[in-house]
Amino acid sequence: MASSKLCASRTELKVLGPRPATLTGRAVRSSRVQIIRRRSSTVLCSVAPNQVESPAAQTFVADVPKKTECFGVFCTTYDLKAEEETKSWKSLINISVSGAAGMISNHLLFKLASGEVFGLDQPIALKLLGSERSIQALEGVAMELEDSLYPLLREVSIGIDPYEVFQDAEWALLIGAKPRGPGMERAGLLDINGQIFAEQGKALNAVASRNVKVIVVGNPCNTNALICLKNAPNIPPKNFHALTRLDENRRNVSLKAGVFYDKVSNMTIWGNHSTTQVPDFLNARIDGRPVKEVITDSKWLEEEFTERVQKRGGVLIQKWGRSSAASTAVSIVDAMRSLVTPTPEGDWFSSGVYTNGNPYGIAEDIVFSMPCRSRGDGDYELAKDVLIDDFLRARLKKTEAELLAEKRCVAHLTGEGNAFCDLPEDTMLPGEQ
Amino acid sequence: MASSKLCASRTELKVLGPRPATLTGRAVRSSRVQIIRRRSSTVLCSVAPNQVESPAAQTFVADVPKKTECFGVFCTTYDLKAEEETKSWKSLINISVSGAAGMISNHLLFKLASGEVFGLDQPIALKLLGSERSIQALEGVAMELEDSLYPLLREVSIGIDPYEVFQDAEWALLIGAKPRGPGMERAGLLDINGQIFAEQGKALNAVASRNVKVIVVGNPCNTNALICLKNAPNIPPKNFHALTRLDENRRNVSLKAGVFYDKVSNMTIWGNHSTTQVPDFLNARIDGRPVKEVITDSKWLEEEFTERVQKRGGVLIQKWGRSSAASTAVSIVDAMRSLVTPTPEGDWFSSGVYTNGNPYGIAEDIVFSMPCRSRGDGDYELAKDVLIDDFLRARLKKTEAELLAEKRCVAHLTGEGNAFCDLPEDTMLPGEQ
Repeated sequence: MASSKLCASRTELKVLGPRPATLTGRAVRSSRVQIIRRRSSTVLCSVAPNQVESPAAQTFVADVPKKTECFGVFCTTYDLKAEEETKSWKSLINISVSGAAGMISNHLLFKLASGEVFGLDQPIALKLLGSERSIQALEGVAMELEDSLYPLLREVSIGIDPYEVFQDAEWALLIGAKPRGPGMERAGLLDINGQIFAEQGKALNAVASRNVKVIVVGNPCNTNALICLKNAPNIPPKNFHALTRLDENRRNVSLKAGVFYDKVSNMTIWGNHSTTQVPDFLNARIDGRPVKEVITDSKWLEEEFTERVQKRGGVLIQKWGRSSAASTAVSIVDAMRSLVTPTPEGDWFSSGVYTNGNPYGIAEDIVFSMPCRSRGDGDYELAKDVLIDDFLRARLKKTEAELLAEKRCVAHLTGEGNAFCDLPEDTMLPGEQ
Repeated sequence: MASSKLCASRTELKVLGPRPATLTGRAVRSSRVQIIRRRSSTVLCSVAPNQVESPAAQTFVADVPKKTECFGVFCTTYDLKAEEETKSWKSLINISVSGAAGMISNHLLFKLASGEVFGLDQPIALKLLGSERSIQALEGVAMELEDSLYPLLREVSIGIDPYEVFQDAEWALLIGAKPRGPGMERAGLLDINGQIFAEQGKALNAVASRNVKVIVVGNPCNTNALICLKNAPNIPPKNFHALTRLDENRRNVSLKAGVFYDKVSNMTIWGNHSTTQVPDFLNARIDGRPVKEVITDSKWLEEEFTERVQKRGGVLIQKWGRSSAASTAVSIVDAMRSLVTPTPEGDWFSSGVYTNGNPYGIAEDIVFSMPCRSRGDGDYELAKDVLIDDFLRARLKKTEAELLAEKRCVAHLTGEGNAFCDLPEDTMLPGEQ
């Protein structure tokens, strides 16, 4: 049944496109990828540029506007400190968003502009990254932002080249990713999206703020975040996050316990944003008490709870007819806010972060969702006093194994030699390709 | 070319469906409608229940869940004042939203839940009105609201009967309307949507708070608002608004003047939310100075400015591929916030409101967008010191004439006898059917 094919690595193509002189990323070695596929004879690999909406592909196209451009009234020059209301404002911060013409961004951008994340004294600049195909739609998004008259939103620019759009970014919200096409397996998706995130990692490394915070939303987000940070050696790996906050927010223990959701704390999602993810009922608390004391139905906790969190996205698609853009945007806001406001005493939040130096015994050098706390300075530390019992440990091992397999599968994109792709099964979350 | 047809009024059908005993709306007389159509032989009138997604039609359908139901964790009972953070909160307010499964609502509901309109000490209940067809999608919306963990959002219920969903509503945001089908003219749209708003007016009259504030967004919104208020005689007509705030927000004079949008004040949209609308450059100010002093290009002001405001929706659809949901939702938030926060000294905002007693010489008994000021108590007064010159007066007359014609066209829905529908031309705004 198994078929295999040798594919030239995408990274070999890179040299064909012009790269900015400021590029400081370490060279990713040319390598060859072996993709072993178990259940299908279709082979997808990184040699076909037309399969990927990545910036590298666009370097072959002539007459495409590449320069990031300011938009409409946002091209206006003004003195940010000139008026009574704005005199005490902080300095403008640059937020770059990829996939900016998509539905998640369509919710998120307006939230950012309204001050929901950074507060009402923090003016922002939105730098929107789209593709050739979506550049018109991006103009529409910019027009709608203009029509919304948000006082804090002072600059909007749009473009299709990450080396332009990520310039001086203090936040990079990487939402855009290629959706899975018919018949495409996780391995194919990892490769095709991995190329995008390798390219964007290089761009961040070259032009973003040295302390940029990166939140990867495009799936498979953990491994995309790993690829991204590996391609950005001059940015601390700690600054890269994979979004698991929507999973955390789907904290249906409150419904089971008959309490409102604000009673639940210390909810952790461990591991991969996939069906191997581990929603943790051992450490979670309801009204300050361990969940297991409040919900004594351990069969429900061990089986149904996890399944409900995992399957919620699929149920939503059935009901609503499309995937959950609004609540995903809310969870991105939550993830950002968790980094810029101090975590409440005794609580924590989940984020997919780099595992080096973690105290939980998770394998190093992967991006794994873990409990974090922040002092509100954009940085975080891993939570202490976290319980791990045998049941939890076994589940952590499984999701860890999956992430290690994904990592082997993208070695050609992280500069770690030949990829060997042997994912045991397809664990994509429904609707989250 | 003209064709005509006598149609039984929709109101004759109403008696077939059960009506709640609490219904106190004045009876709308049975009447006959004459629709004269100029450019098409297709005749649309109110006798075909299957053309209208109105609640009346649903009374014929068996086995449809009618009861408004609380949803998921929002069915939880709790003491709103039990915790330190919530002790100082105000009492819960009920916000009913029609068309709740649509794209505008999908932006709006999350904004309401986040506290953007009413502030961070105002818990809210969202009561979502959908149709049989959209009830599943509404469940999806409720699930996403649940996953968003907004602390202020304490109750969410969904239903398809306005007599249930509008119960005790303090705000009713009427967004749902039938889109115009192929070949349907404005007269047909007025009739088909008018029926929905007549029914919803009756429902508000029967079950909503006596001081409910109603914002009609579904188009043609001015005349829909008129129909609605005429069917709700026990609610002050002053409480009904037709949304023209998005037009006001499209204040492209700032771009022309090379200043940021926050420098523009006293922007008025007069009249109908259609292409006869009058964006007012006579009274608007830039940085406190009359626009005509700052922008001396009167040809631009007299011709291009108005056209740009009117055509922006169409341009957006071209760019973005769909109509402007996000910025419409922002403008609804703006419209609500203008009523619950004091209007800044010297400024005003536009809203389509009932004309009785207006000081501008506008015909009485229609809903016409005019400059308003609020003390922040939910009420408003019409702005004083408004200039009207001959150029402005002539344009006001034109949009007034259109609204009077629309009113004659829906007389069968306002209890004012026989409708005579003779609209001179089609003035729908692009994409805003």
